[in-house]
This record gives sequence, C-alpha cells and structure tokens, in this order.
Amino acid sequence: MELKFYNSLTRKKEEFIPIQEGRAGMYVCGPTVYGDAHLGHAKSYISFDVIVRYLRYLGLDVTYIQNITDVGHLTDDADEGEDKLAVAARKQRIHPMALAEHYTASYFEDMDKLNCVRPDISPRAAAHIPEQIEMIEVLIEKGFAYEVNGSVYFDVSKFPEYGKLSGRKIEDMQSGHRIDVASEKREPVDFALWKKAQPNHIMQWNSPWGKGYPGWHLECSVMSMKYLGKTIDIHGGGLENKFPHHECEIAQSEAANGCLFVRYWLHNNMVTVDGTKMGKSLNNFINLKQVFTGDHERLSRAYSPIAARMLVLNSHYRSPLDFSDAALTSAQSGLDRITVAVKALRKAIKTAASSEADSKIIERLDESKSRFEAAMNDDINTSVGLSVIYEMVKMTNEVLDANPSRETLEAIDNQFRVLGGDVLGIVLDSYEDTNASDDGLLDHLMGFIIEQRALARENKDWALADKIRDTMAEFGVVFKDSPNGTTWQKK
Amino acid sequence: MELKFYNSLTRKKEEFIPIQEGRAGMYVCGPTVYGDAHLGHAKSYISFDVIVRYLRYLGLDVTYIQNITDVGHLTDDADEGEDKLAVAARKQRIHPMALAEHYTASYFEDMDKLNCVRPDISPRAAAHIPEQIEMIEVLIEKGFAYEVNGSVYFDVSKFPEYGKLSGRKIEDMQSGHRIDVASEKREPVDFALWKKAQPNHIMQWNSPWGKGYPGWHLECSVMSMKYLGKTIDIHGGGLENKFPHHECEIAQSEAANGCLFVRYWLHNNMVTVDGTKMGKSLNNFINLKQVFTGDHERLSRAYSPIAARMLVLNSHYRSPLDFSDAALTSAQSGLDRITVAVKALRKAIKTAASSEADSKIIERLDESKSRFEAAMNDDINTSVGLSVIYEMVKMTNEVLDANPSRETLEAIDNQFRVLGGDVLGIVLDSYEDTNASDDGLLDHLMGFIIEQRALARENKDWALADKIRDTMAEFGVVFKDSPNGTTWQKK
Repeated sequence: MELKFYNSLTRKKEEFIPIQEGRAGMYVCGPTVYGDAHLGHAKSYISFDVIVRYLRYLGLDVTYIQNITDVGHLTDDADEGEDKLAVAARKQRIHPMALAEHYTASYFEDMDKLNCVRPDISPRAAAHIPEQIEMIEVLIEKGFAYEVNGSVYFDVSKFPEYGKLSGRKIEDMQSGHRIDVASEKREPVDFALWKKAQPNHIMQWNSPWGKGYPGWHLECSVMSMKYLGKTIDIHGGGLENKFPHHECEIAQSEAANGCLFVRYWLHNNMVTVDGTKMGKSLNNFINLKQVFTGDHERLSRAYSPIAARMLVLNSHYRSPLDFSDAALTSAQSGLDRITVAVKALRKAIKTAASSEADSKIIERLDESKSRFEAAMNDDINTSVGLSVIYEMVKMTNEVLDANPSRETLEAIDNQFRVLGGDVLGIVLDSYEDTNASDDGLLDHLMGFIIEQRALARENKDWALADKIRDTMAEFGVVFKDSPNGTTWQKK
Repeated sequence: MELKFYNSLTRKKEEFIPIQEGRAGMYVCGPTVYGDAHLGHAKSYISFDVIVRYLRYLGLDVTYIQNITDVGHLTDDADEGEDKLAVAARKQRIHPMALAEHYTASYFEDMDKLNCVRPDISPRAAAHIPEQIEMIEVLIEKGFAYEVNGSVYFDVSKFPEYGKLSGRKIEDMQSGHRIDVASEKREPVDFALWKKAQPNHIMQWNSPWGKGYPGWHLECSVMSMKYLGKTIDIHGGGLENKFPHHECEIAQSEAANGCLFVRYWLHNNMVTVDGTKMGKSLNNFINLKQVFTGDHERLSRAYSPIAARMLVLNSHYRSPLDFSDAALTSAQSGLDRITVAVKALRKAIKTAASSEADSKIIERLDESKSRFEAAMNDDINTSVGLSVIYEMVKMTNEVLDANPSRETLEAIDNQFRVLGGDVLGIVLDSYEDTNASDDGLLDHLMGFIIEQRALARENKDWALADKIRDTMAEFGVVFKDSPNGTTWQKK
C-alpha cells in the first residue's frame, strides 16, 4: 500500500517516491504578512500540516519549509501596484518590517492554536536579497531575462514549457492580455524578477541594476533551492497561486538550474463563506481570531480552534470548503464527541484492572488503522480518516460499558494518540479536565454536598434535600441518582 | 522631575533628552539563538523591557529594536572559533537556519511568559547581508578597514577613540594580547568585519572579497542604523558585551557615518546562581523553562514566570543579581501577596456601593505615584518602584476593611494597572481567578456551604458546624469569620 498524491503537474494520482529514500523536502507558499490570518489560510496550512504529519507518521524525515512574504508582493498580485506591506505600514505609520514582525507573530499564534506544527524553517523574502540577485544574474547570463530601466523581466518566450503547470498556452495568454502601451516589458506575459524602486519606496536594496526590490515570484524559487536543493520533492500552495505564481516559479528555477524544479505539485482548493467568495465588502471576511472569539456578525459563538481544524479536515484538501456558522457548530459538536470519549477513556484507564488486552478489540483497532492508512494513502483523504476516528469513538463507548482491562483501554488510547493526535492533530495529549479543575476542590465539594443530601434523605429531612437540589439546579448542576449512588453534571 | 540614565559612555547620570522630541529609538543586543534562554537572558531583557515600558508611560513614542543573532557569533566571542549555530546544528544534524528558527521561537515563548513586550522589530543578522557588505565597503573606502586573504578587518589604529566606552587604552590592549604569529591581522586588537568561509562552512554568502560571512559585531551597527538611523537614542545590552562587542560597534558606526553612534549607553549587570557564575560544568546552569517547571536539581519547585520577573526587578539593573531557590521562593511569595490583594480589590469593586472617592486615599495614591516616578526617573530604580507597589498592597488591605466606595477601589485598581501593570509588568489586566474557576461554580458552592454552616450554628447544631469546618479543612479550605460574615480561602 503506497502513498499517492494527485500531482497538479501531471494531472494524475502518482505514487510518492522521494528523491532520497527515507527523506522528503516540502516547500509551501506561506502568508504575506500584512494582516491577520483568515479562513483561507486555515484551509491551506491545516491541509499541508496534515500532509507533513502523515509523511512523518510513515517514517520519513521531512524538512518542511514555509516562507514568510515580507516584501515584493504587490497589490495586484502581478507586476503592478504597490507593495502590500508598504501600503499597510504607511496607514499605521510604522516601518514595514515592524508590520511584518507583528503579523508574523500573529500568524504563528493562530497556527499554533490550530495545532499546525511549526515549519522547520520559515524564511523571509527580505532576508534573501543576495540569493535573489544571484539567481537573476544567472537568468540574465543564460539569456532568460533582460533588463529595462533598472528592472529585470523574465522572457517567457525563451522558456517554451511556460504553462505546463496551469495548462495555459503562451499564445492564448499573450492575446488575452490587455494591451498596455506604457509597459516596458517585451511581451505582456513576461514577469518581473527585479523592480526598480522609486526614491520614496521604503524597502529597497542595491543591485547590479540600481536600487530596487525583488519580484514576488522569485523568493520561492530562491528559498526552496537554498534550503531543499534544486529539485524538491513536494511544493504546496493554494490553487489561486497555480497561475501565475507557481508557473513563474517553475520557469525561473528550471531556466536557472537546468533541471526539474518540483516532483509533486500539490494544490489545496479555496474557501467560501456562506457560499460566497470571502470579501471585505461582503461582510463575510472572517479572520481566525474572530472564529476563536466569536466576534463576527456571521458567527453565533466562539469556536475552539480545533473545531475549525476539524471543519477543514472534514473535506478533501482538493475540494472547495464552505465555512458557515452551521458548519462550524457541527464540527464543534463532532469534536466534542471525540473529546468526551477520549477523556472518559483516559479516566477509566486510571482505575481499570490490569489483564490481557481483548484480542477482538485489538483486531478491530488494526482494521481501523488499515482503513485510516488506506484513506490517507489515497491522496490524503482526511474525511475518511476522520470517519475512522468516529468509529473509534463508538468502539470506545461500547468498550467502556463492558468492564474492559487497562491494556485494552490503553491500546485504544494509543491509537487515538497516533491517528487522531500525531496525524490529524485533533486529539490532544492532555486535556484540562474542567470538572476536576482547581486541584479537585470542585469535585470534593460536590461530593460533600451529595453526601449531605443523602443524609438529609436518610433523616427524612425532605426540606433540606429539596433545598440542596434546588440550589444546585440554580448553579447549573443536576444530580443523577442511580443504584450505585449519585453523580452530578453541569447542565 | 526628569528621567535620568546612567550613561556608560560618560560614566555619569544624565537627563534623557531624545533626538526627536516625543520619540525614542532603542536598540538592545538580542540573543544568539543556539540554545534555550537562561537566567542571564531574563536579567537583560526584563531590565530593558521595563525601560521601554517606562518610556512609553512617559508618553514617548518608542521604537524598540532587538536583534536575533543567527550567524557570525563565533565560539570564542571574538574572531576565532566556529559559528555557534553551525556547531549546534551539526550536532543535531539539521540546517543552522532550522536551529535558529527553533530557538527563536523558544526565546519568544519564554519572553512572552516573562511578560516582556515584543520588540517592534526583531531583525536577523543573516537577513541583512547586503547592508553589512555595504558598510564594510564604506569602511574600506574611508581607510578604516583592510582586506587580507578574503577577510576584512577593522584597523583600530585609525580610530583613536577606540576604548572610549570600556575605558581601555589601545596600547594596553595591544600589549595585553597574546602574540599570535599565524594571525593575518595587522594588529591583534583589530577585529573582523568579514570572515572568509572555508568551503565546507554551511552559512556563507558572496561578497566583493569572495565567499564569507559577517563578523559578529557588524550586525548591530548595520541593523540599528537601518531601523533607527545613524545616531540612536539608547543602546542597551549586557555588561559582558561592553567590550569588545559594543566598543567595536562604536568604532564601525562612527568611522562609517562620521557622527555619534549612541547618545545613551545602558548596560545591565550579570547574574550568578547560588553565588557563582553560571556554568554547565557547575550544575548551576538554569534555563527559563526549568524555572517555569521546577525541573532542575537546584530548584525545589516550579515558579511562575512573573515571580522570576519580580526577582529581576527587585534589584537594580546595574547591580549583579543572584538567583537561588530561596530568592525565587521569596519573590513568588511577594508576588502572591500582590496578586491576592489585587484580586480581592477587583472582587470588592463588583459589589461596592458607588459614592465619591475617598480624598485621603486619592492623596495617598498620588504620593505613591510621585515616589514611584521619582524612583524610576532615577535611572530606573525598580526595587523602590516595587516597594511602592507593596505599600499599595498594604493600603488596599486597610481600605478593604473600611467599607470603601467603588470609586475609591477603582482608583486604587487603576494605579495598580498602570504602575504595576503597564510599567512593571507584574500586575495582570485579568487573572484567572482560581477560586472562581469553572464559571464561578466553586464560589457558589462555597457560598452555599458557608450558609449551611451558619444555619447549623444558629440552630446550635455544633456537630454539623464542626463537621463542615473539619471537612473543608481536609479539602484545604479555611474559613475566616468576621463581623461582616465568613470568607474562605485555600491554605
């Protein structure tokens, strides 16, 4: 049973064979840090997080690089407009690097909450100016790039494979472009490697072509090469970056290095909110901090970050995902079911008697695991993976009613930790047990009160027994009487 | 009343007058990210954190830059030895930039816990290679630096003021150096601006002098200039960096720019542990994560990060500080006193009746504030600042017994928030009230139990009243009876 990825480059599912046995290098296009991360970021980075986790589960030594774009990303996503960071920084009257610092920290804060593992390296575009200049020099030397007025452009006509990722034809692209008489490019489809800076441009560096800054596409070619080599195993990113961003990356890297750039191109699909593309003017633009606090008019409540993670994993990474309050509510309730079961399991482990593990349960666990792996091997089918976790919840609840041995419970818990924890990142290693918070004092007090109530009933002091029950009901606590005694829970 | 700093450069206390009215630029030497932050880092970064906070309290618009050293810091802290990150990365068999990423994240995690505000920009040395090369070019052009075999050195003899910060004389330094016949430097006191890289050196960049990497001292000159300008208001750092690091920074910057580099040089003193300099071989090397978990043979328990912060603020930043288990215990108990008082104050605010604030209390608060400011204005005397907070604790406990108005309590709380919170960073805006955790249920239950006990006493059911008291004592809860009723607290 092998891991297969749908490779956007070949447009088919292919077995994943890394360049170096036992290792995998993966590069994912990271955020442009000029605002708080939103639902689109959650979709992309949770998707690739699970891929990294699954590769590691399979025993691969993964190097995971995800860049931080702090310079060069222009407002129109192509070669025109202003630098997105410079615009935002000017509004706040701070240095663009202070803006980058703030939103980089904000990004990692959100990703940590979503339980995404940190990339091994998060290289910054502005931290790799010499390397970018050097790649441009190579491209000029090899005839793939030309300088005009202090800017340098990639000459798409010199790279006949341009379009191989997106399936676009150069001729169609040329004719599709609006005629821009003012352009200094030879052809509209050419793209910027280096842009001449206006004197008042705050982020600029010296180069052989004068003061300027790198084009947006270049950083990914340069930083992936620096940290992973000229040919890398996996490149991930959002579908919206397939063209022109990734197409341009391929052109630059393959032209400069003369070898294949990326073996497996993986693209996550996009998100909608309440069925519509997110847009600030539509009032459906929701950032992650708003999801975590519930502070948005489209949200009825705060959701746990792991519930947002569940919602992403509920659909395939290559499928579009619609966020809505209802979908989040449903994900939260699914997560709660899993969490309650795992907590009950772990509580039971503490008191269960030791004896051999139940072989039937072990067999069922092995079957679950096989189905989980088969789903994940099939281009990371996380929704089937999640369904296996739900089956394990069902199994847990059955087993807990049947006086299981500690070994049986531990085997189930271990599988929750590995498949639900290590791979999917939705089962945590430890939970704050809210009922047992404050050093168990709450439980002690409730035990005492339950005892007083039992005494009152024994003494036929119905007034006191009722008073205790009613007062607790006021506090939101309900008693459940059974032949084995009385338990309590919060409404 | 003006703020005065002890300026290491002039060796006297001087009034702080910023270059630009209403603004202050401050640069602090940050960590070399090849290991977890330890007690020495806490001393330095808490000290400068309070300085930043106090400048902001005074209404200044502060830009706070603190670098991250990820390349060029050699194992002997001077021009010889290996790169500290490269050595550590090789041991772990990862890329030095992955090591830097890991320990940068670890550093900020610890600093966040210590309640240090994030610097506005945390520039990385490796992210400023072009700027470093450019400054070297200027120094060569102006005759302050020379190239030998692909390395570039600063010619100390060309900068007669070398030694002005540390008070050392060039002649003494020259004769004091051991004679190193193999050295390619003109004089032993010269220092590296650029080091030629051996072919197997993993972090290297192209330069006009061939492949190499920047000298350690250079980054701070370059990054402070980039983000704060050629002359900066304040430069901070540990005393151990006064020479050679800061002396070299002055030489480079002033030689290159032809103007004063730093107006106010501030140096924090160093730490000892149990009276001895920290050293891995002495088993007294304690990192911050160990303080927070208590996981070190010299520690009897875990300490809250804010207790470690208290300990640092208890002594002056220019005084040496001895960390010990006993000192941490004492800081923790001081912090607990403050926290208990502030919590009680905030609890009382919720139920206190509204009426005019007590003018005597307001007067006392104003006096406290004046003493606080006088102490802080006197070269940031945090231990006197802390003593003002303790006086406020005493005042709070007195006031709480005297049926105060909500306005009185709010005035006290506001002063706690500003002086203890905004400036010293030891009073938090919100506390998880452990007594009131779990939606206040604990408080409700205790209220109910206290009521039952009062009823029992009213009914002269001493057996029940005693039983309630004894059971609660078992749970670690003690009652405090007063004419106004009964309160409870955990032992």
